[in-house]
Amino acid sequence: MEIYTDAYFMNEAFKQAKIAFEENEIPVGAVIVCRNKIIARAYNQTEKLTDVTAHAEMLAITSAANALGSKYLTECKLYVTLEPCIMCAGACFWSQLGEIHYAAADPKRGFSNNPEKLLHPKTKVSSGLMAEESKNLLDSFFKKLRN
Amino acid sequence: MEIYTDAYFMNEAFKQAKIAFEENEIPVGAVIVCRNKIIARAYNQTEKLTDVTAHAEMLAITSAANALGSKYLTECKLYVTLEPCIMCAGACFWSQLGEIHYAAADPKRGFSNNPEKLLHPKTKVSSGLMAEESKNLLDSFFKKLRN
Repeated sequence: MEIYTDAYFMNEAFKQAKIAFEENEIPVGAVIVCRNKIIARAYNQTEKLTDVTAHAEMLAITSAANALGSKYLTECKLYVTLEPCIMCAGACFWSQLGEIHYAAADPKRGFSNNPEKLLHPKTKVSSGLMAEESKNLLDSFFKKLRN
Repeated sequence: MEIYTDAYFMNEAFKQAKIAFEENEIPVGAVIVCRNKIIARAYNQTEKLTDVTAHAEMLAITSAANALGSKYLTECKLYVTLEPCIMCAGACFWSQLGEIHYAAADPKRGFSNNPEKLLHPKTKVSSGLMAEESKNLLDSFFKKLRN
């Protein structure tokens, strides 16, 4: 069933990024999945909330913990359209997230550029799914912003 | 006037940490000051909110941005009783905080253990004010937790 694939969940994260785009936010979207069920959906809202901490991943982590009634997300998978930054990687560490799947890499602000292991040792990471679409959406946004 | 010293503001952060202690939260407190006025006060609420992102600094940054109506806190000073973690350092970076004053060092999870510069280049950092009191409060908390 398509609904249980990583591609399906990443596409759901991408839909969130498109909502961000429409709302003039840097278009990054995220979903958190627990036992094959989406328990949180979020998109970047730093402008709307006037809050640098309102990255898609942060909002999704808060929402998922609320849904589960647990601070720890060891059985959860995060799907996000852009590589998490240091702040979001720190939140992933504290939540002990089971898996992180990110689409586009962020060579400037992505956590993986840091030489230290920032994530929890048990967190698995994969990347590249829908990377091109996610990067194109970001590029379109910044192009629109400049014009 | 005592009200304008770093020691005064750190003591205000310490009062927040004591509230956290009373509420069975890891006792870390923070205040954010803009032009010599406290615009945000917060203490760690990860247990109460069931949310790993609810560190004192994160709540204070969100609150200060809300008070100012600006995402950027370039003219603000953060006073916090424990060295910020990677997540909180990331939030400080994005907010372009003017100054960070922390009390106790955190040799295990503090941002300064990371070899990369995680803060904004314009952010000034100082540490050590009320370090002993802040560390003692944390030690008492963990001792109470074990008993």
